[in-house]
Amino acid sequence: MAQAKFAVVLSGCGVYDGAEIHEAVLSLLAIDRAGASYQCFAPDIAQMHVVNHLTGQPSTESRNVLVEAARIARGAIKPLSELNIADFDAVLLPGGFGAAKNLCTFAVAGADCTVEPQTERVITAAHAAAKPIGALCIAPALIAKVLGAVTVTIGSDAGTADAVRATGATHVIASHGQTVIDSANKLVTTPCYMLDATISQIDDGARAVVAAILKMLE
Amino acid sequence: MAQAKFAVVLSGCGVYDGAEIHEAVLSLLAIDRAGASYQCFAPDIAQMHVVNHLTGQPSTESRNVLVEAARIARGAIKPLSELNIADFDAVLLPGGFGAAKNLCTFAVAGADCTVEPQTERVITAAHAAAKPIGALCIAPALIAKVLGAVTVTIGSDAGTADAVRATGATHVIASHGQTVIDSANKLVTTPCYMLDATISQIDDGARAVVAAILKMLE
Repeated sequence: MAQAKFAVVLSGCGVYDGAEIHEAVLSLLAIDRAGASYQCFAPDIAQMHVVNHLTGQPSTESRNVLVEAARIARGAIKPLSELNIADFDAVLLPGGFGAAKNLCTFAVAGADCTVEPQTERVITAAHAAAKPIGALCIAPALIAKVLGAVTVTIGSDAGTADAVRATGATHVIASHGQTVIDSANKLVTTPCYMLDATISQIDDGARAVVAAILKMLE
Repeated sequence: MAQAKFAVVLSGCGVYDGAEIHEAVLSLLAIDRAGASYQCFAPDIAQMHVVNHLTGQPSTESRNVLVEAARIARGAIKPLSELNIADFDAVLLPGGFGAAKNLCTFAVAGADCTVEPQTERVITAAHAAAKPIGALCIAPALIAKVLGAVTVTIGSDAGTADAVRATGATHVIASHGQTVIDSANKLVTTPCYMLDATISQIDDGARAVVAAILKMLE
């Protein structure tokens, strides 16, 4: 095919309250290295939390998911409401608590979580159009909540895997750089920082997801 | 030598008011991929500005350089005042406006800028100990301001190169992924986002700087 176009959905900027920065940057690198292109998006909503990443404690500040995600995208980002799935070949969601706090409420509500409306719209539309969706770290839990009977990995954490299963999904254990592929639903997932990982292992995971998606698009 | 240890000096989190995120993450990746290790540091000071990265406009917020840099480091960061150069083999400074707004005031004062005291201490100590210093993007201007008669690159922007020369330094034009090496002073610099670059070109630049430093350490 011609150069594949990825829509990358970010959820803020920082592992504890937004998109995990290494996963986000290394996803963009993997896409560019593979000769594909990307456009970043994020919902224009308030973050659930602002966390001081030095202390790990919540802050009293309020920040906007789109505005903070723009830091990772160097300003080249659009509101998720503007994402038309017809314009893209695949969707990629890096992890970080933002995927489980801002794109849905899985971090606090588990399988009973609610999903941010634009995020649900985009995942549902990509799935309906049979376009591949990649998800890293905790983002596969969001995919499971939206799509239900799919197969994903969040690594090997038993409690999180149980919560993923409670959405109706099948959970498969995976390790560093490994992907779990649900061919019928065109999903590719990998654990990244759901495991105790080095930054090189995150790079391995991001590259493996992008490669698997490009293979699906062949 | 045994595994080389890099001190990575961050200046916040976001190209317009802090450390450039791609340059910072890809520096950490390059170090880890090369089999070396890193510890992140940042000064515990207020940012000069907080910029809304979606609009490019200044915000009325106040943020702390160390607290925001902790987002890139996933919390694994120390105050720059705790950096003892004897504990490290090399120092690496990613770019972004934070290097020219928070680590020094080059962005607003050019060659007449002041340098944040802990940053000046660390650069001076590394140079005195003949330990390699790597700098990306605009960070070489900071190195020039502190060390004076050294040779660096900030890419090819004529106005910025003039301001670098006004510090007493020699400026050499360089392109994507190219390094300028000042062997006598053990400096390695590369343009990164001082040029209109892709994220893969930033990866090339970060890897080239890390490789050149490791060669100096052989």
